[in-house]
Amino acid sequence: MEKTEIASTETRSRNLGTNATGADLYSLVERLYPICRSITGNGVRETLAILKESVPMEIHEVPTGTEVFDWTVPKEWNIRDAYIKDSSGRRVVDFRKSNLHVVNYSVPVRKKMSLRELRPHLHTVPRYPDRIPYRTTYYNRTWGFCMAHAEAEKLRDDTYEVCIDASLEDGHLTYGEFVVPGETREEVLLSSHVCHPSMCNDNLSAVAVMAAVARRLAGRKCRYSYRFLFIPATIGSIAWLSLNLEKTGNIRHGLVGACLGDGGMIHYKRTRNGDAEIDRIVEKVLSDAGAPFQMLDFTPYGYDERQYGSPGFDLPVGCIMRTPHGQFAEYHTSADNLDFVKPDALEDSYRRICEIVETLEVNRIYKNTHPFGEPHLGKRGIYEHVSGPEPTVDEHSVFWVLNLCDGRHSLLDIARRSGFSFKRIQAAAELLHRYGLLTELSGSDV
Amino acid sequence: MEKTEIASTETRSRNLGTNATGADLYSLVERLYPICRSITGNGVRETLAILKESVPMEIHEVPTGTEVFDWTVPKEWNIRDAYIKDSSGRRVVDFRKSNLHVVNYSVPVRKKMSLRELRPHLHTVPRYPDRIPYRTTYYNRTWGFCMAHAEAEKLRDDTYEVCIDASLEDGHLTYGEFVVPGETREEVLLSSHVCHPSMCNDNLSAVAVMAAVARRLAGRKCRYSYRFLFIPATIGSIAWLSLNLEKTGNIRHGLVGACLGDGGMIHYKRTRNGDAEIDRIVEKVLSDAGAPFQMLDFTPYGYDERQYGSPGFDLPVGCIMRTPHGQFAEYHTSADNLDFVKPDALEDSYRRICEIVETLEVNRIYKNTHPFGEPHLGKRGIYEHVSGPEPTVDEHSVFWVLNLCDGRHSLLDIARRSGFSFKRIQAAAELLHRYGLLTELSGSDV
Amino acid sequence: MEKTEIASTETRSRNLGTNATGADLYSLVERLYPICRSITGNGVRETLAILKESVPMEIHEVPTGTEVFDWTVPKEWNIRDAYIKDSSGRRVVDFRKSNLHVVNYSVPVRKKMSLRELRPHLHTVPRYPDRIPYRTTYYNRTWGFCMAHAEAEKLRDDTYEVCIDASLEDGHLTYGEFVVPGETREEVLLSSHVCHPSMCNDNLSAVAVMAAVARRLAGRKCRYSYRFLFIPATIGSIAWLSLNLEKTGNIRHGLVGACLGDGGMIHYKRTRNGDAEIDRIVEKVLSDAGAPFQMLDFTPYGYDERQYGSPGFDLPVGCIMRTPHGQFAEYHTSADNLDFVKPDALEDSYRRICEIVETLEVNRIYKNTHPFGEPHLGKRGIYEHVSGPEPTVDEHSVFWVLNLCDGRHSLLDIARRSGFSFKRIQAAAELLHRYGLLTELSGSDV
Repeated sequence: MEKTEIASTETRSRNLGTNATGADLYSLVERLYPICRSITGNGVRETLAILKESVPMEIHEVPTGTEVFDWTVPKEWNIRDAYIKDSSGRRVVDFRKSNLHVVNYSVPVRKKMSLRELRPHLHTVPRYPDRIPYRTTYYNRTWGFCMAHAEAEKLRDDTYEVCIDASLEDGHLTYGEFVVPGETREEVLLSSHVCHPSMCNDNLSAVAVMAAVARRLAGRKCRYSYRFLFIPATIGSIAWLSLNLEKTGNIRHGLVGACLGDGGMIHYKRTRNGDAEIDRIVEKVLSDAGAPFQMLDFTPYGYDERQYGSPGFDLPVGCIMRTPHGQFAEYHTSADNLDFVKPDALEDSYRRICEIVETLEVNRIYKNTHPFGEPHLGKRGIYEHVSGPEPTVDEHSVFWVLNLCDGRHSLLDIARRSGFSFKRIQAAAELLHRYGLLTELSGSDV
Repeated sequence: MEKTEIASTETRSRNLGTNATGADLYSLVERLYPICRSITGNGVRETLAILKESVPMEIHEVPTGTEVFDWTVPKEWNIRDAYIKDSSGRRVVDFRKSNLHVVNYSVPVRKKMSLRELRPHLHTVPRYPDRIPYRTTYYNRTWGFCMAHAEAEKLRDDTYEVCIDASLEDGHLTYGEFVVPGETREEVLLSSHVCHPSMCNDNLSAVAVMAAVARRLAGRKCRYSYRFLFIPATIGSIAWLSLNLEKTGNIRHGLVGACLGDGGMIHYKRTRNGDAEIDRIVEKVLSDAGAPFQMLDFTPYGYDERQYGSPGFDLPVGCIMRTPHGQFAEYHTSADNLDFVKPDALEDSYRRICEIVETLEVNRIYKNTHPFGEPHLGKRGIYEHVSGPEPTVDEHSVFWVLNLCDGRHSLLDIARRSGFSFKRIQAAAELLHRYGLLTELSGSDV
Repeated sequence: MEKTEIASTETRSRNLGTNATGADLYSLVERLYPICRSITGNGVRETLAILKESVPMEIHEVPTGTEVFDWTVPKEWNIRDAYIKDSSGRRVVDFRKSNLHVVNYSVPVRKKMSLRELRPHLHTVPRYPDRIPYRTTYYNRTWGFCMAHAEAEKLRDDTYEVCIDASLEDGHLTYGEFVVPGETREEVLLSSHVCHPSMCNDNLSAVAVMAAVARRLAGRKCRYSYRFLFIPATIGSIAWLSLNLEKTGNIRHGLVGACLGDGGMIHYKRTRNGDAEIDRIVEKVLSDAGAPFQMLDFTPYGYDERQYGSPGFDLPVGCIMRTPHGQFAEYHTSADNLDFVKPDALEDSYRRICEIVETLEVNRIYKNTHPFGEPHLGKRGIYEHVSGPEPTVDEHSVFWVLNLCDGRHSLLDIARRSGFSFKRIQAAAELLHRYGLLTELSGSDV
């Protein structure tokens, strides 16, 4: 029976689902790129419908006016067209060319005005004159256009026709949720924001990566339950928390994913607690992987980890990124485009998150069944695995596991103390478990 | 009502009393300089009488023979004149020129003797031949003279007339005490020694600074009660502790001040505990001030912090100095004079101690009233204070305060974790308090 | 009565036994060197008989087949002769020249064979062609010879006569045990392995040093009881633990000694806990000694500390070495000979272990009898010891001891916090104890 369990664990490790490639991930980013998303509206619905083709998620609609903690779900925003035409009728700014041209959540407008009247409604990035900035006005009823600074400089005195053909009406806030039920009700939360219009790194990169992780776990019986949220930032996580209060107590670990497609190294921002199991696991996985990475301390600004980590919840949710928001020049501009994200980077992010999940799954506490002195390995034939022509475990890992499996150290603890990779320690533990020298502590024994 | 409270806090911060200038502080040092003080006697009385002109302190007289723990209050020492005359009648050493010339607490003497007999009673500093050293003989009944080494070298074989016109008789140990009652009985102890004769840095500098801090707090209703002690070193603090045992339990924080007028950077010696609130506050205040400073670990030698920090009390009392005793060459010599202390240094010491006091006053624990997710700042108009043309607080501080005001973090904790200045965090907390997003925890809630 | 106690402590410190010199230690190594030892057999008996001449130890015999935890005491191995003869009858390998030539625990063999058949039974160290390696086959019934690689290269095709005149029969596992009963039943365990044949550093060096420490403590009434074990590695410590389970609860501190004669600096491997009193004491003693040394973290491989530190026991037993096993090129070869160990190194190891023992003995918790303020040292005449012409203690140490003797700090804690040497703090504590300013806490007060 023990052998059966081990076998199933190994099967589990090997068949955690189909691997996504960088090309797969990039294709999904490409397909989602043109859609004009916002914190509400059809852009999010269209995005989630595409994700649902491969991840059988549930789509939730929260009505305008719903009270969610200190917030209220806003009116739904939809836009059909927008432009600024000069007196000759030429579109000098055209929403059809880039949805960043319209300040997101602008109220509808249709009027003629002089350049002087128009100026306060125009937003540019003088430092990068060719880039269109991304601006929003969710909670301030106004309107505006974003454009390349070089283009704005060319505008002459003229009478302009300004049109934002948008609606701001009672409707819904839409989000996607996908749960993979596990052996226990303890949950891992994986969250990414889907509210940004045509920008690739922030945040189609993370949407694509998280969807691939979800696809890999779908239908599998994991130890933990996994909950994937594809939500508008801030109001989305606040709405989910408010409407699912009773579920938050099951969340044991969590990751917000953002900006996972650029060429920078991985950055991990620790949970509010700063020393949660997820923090230690991510650090070990990244360290074992051998590539440069950066651990960052928690700050209460950034992505939705600030909501999950608000003092009323204090959930152990970290944030995994490549280059952090605001630290790349393309951030929140039209330069965050399909050239800026790379298939290799997407695939690397995906692999790391899969490794984090796999490590969470197998990071258990075992107890040495022969704790008085060392057990006699030779008489059990264990040395064959250690010193045979193709050893699967190393002797030092075996001794570390035997020594520290006292019911107080997880495999992660042992890997950290020994300085060995998690996989080395895990292999030794699986071998010793198979030979009856370890028993797994059930929750109540721990 | 909340607004009123906030207003009063702000008034408090602005009007903590009249600011002392470097010139004020220096003038007081000048005025106190000529007086011959000791651990008992009229010099201390005269000193305290001058301080009392501006600080309405109580003068305590503890009779000779009073048992104070392991010690006994000694006989009172007073001196009128002292000299060494050569056979021509010329005063080769003259107490009227410097009171350092007499070993403090010398027994009376009047006799003629050869240079050879006199020699063992003469003290000099060969390394600094122009300086008169400061020596005492509190608990050893002997007598002596201190003089410049260069002058001692000039003494010829002769018959000298030696006179110390002093008295050592039953009397009192005198000290000054000034209490500013606060909203609570919890106390801050501010202690400085007044027993040294004509030396400026050690310790008229600290006496003048502490008196100015006392003047600033006088008549104000602070959160804490403030107790100022102007006492002779060692025997004075031991006497106060012994006679006020029941009050020591109220002392929450304390500072001994010493050597606060020289041109060196501020040094702070931590309390015996090493991580008391006062230790963390002083470090933050000095760090925020931007000038170089040095934190020192507790040692059981130095000033009266060694008595307050004796194991039977273990009071959280640190010691604030500029250059520590024994680390400046002028220490305990006539070179510790009016040239050695500087108005700027005195004022800087005064300002830092005022900032420490102000930080102690406002370092409270608040609780976020909307701890589930972030509160909606926009709808409350809080962003106007954050992003208006003259922002009074910064957004990041607002988020740190909201995130960490969970009832377990003081403002100091938040400032330390965020890495922001205390004032930045304090400003954000006051703004949020004004808008009802924070409540202050009363003592029993903490 | 207190004075009597102090006097006896001082006598104790001075007369901890006769000092061993490097020459004494080296002589013992020389005498033990030729004996062929193994984990069982007459070589160990002969070794222990020699040790018993100066250390009145008890010799224990554990029968073959005894179950000791997961292990079984093996058959006893004894060897009389062994050789490989070429066809001319010349001994090309001769056990009489070096007992390392035979793989320890080889089964008996006597047959003729070709070089090709012989090869798999020959072990060499190609990197050091002149050295004979040390090999064992305790739990694998086979046989073999070890020889210099240069010699093995010279072997020609020939018919060789192979003889190992050994027996592997029911018998006993032999170990020596010597207990010095102390004032309490709390024990210090000092363990070294005696199972290696003719190698000096590993481990006759430690056997000689531990025997000298035992001789020094013999007949004395120490605070702790001292238990010395001279045992075969692994199976010996496992057997002792299994047969003395009820005694293991008394072990408060312990040291395994190994490789104590080479010219390298001392290395100390911490206990499994990593911050046991023995760990802190060893670090302080080595640091106070002024010579370079290295502290190593616990690993579950090495010597018998891995058995004492197995999770079922978790005994606070560290390991003291000079150059650690495997880190010197002579390790487990014939080059670990009488040239490799040095009298000076042996004596230095011995002295350090004596200092560790002495520090354990006197590291007590005292309580200041006058904890409120400083006690008046002058009136007690204590300053005479501090500032006389030949001070025995220094004033700063006196103040540290008075300040930290609050019932929560041992002398070691005080020495570590002050940064002073243990002896300085100890001298101050003994002085203050003599003058009644300290009382020693009994076990139940601590």
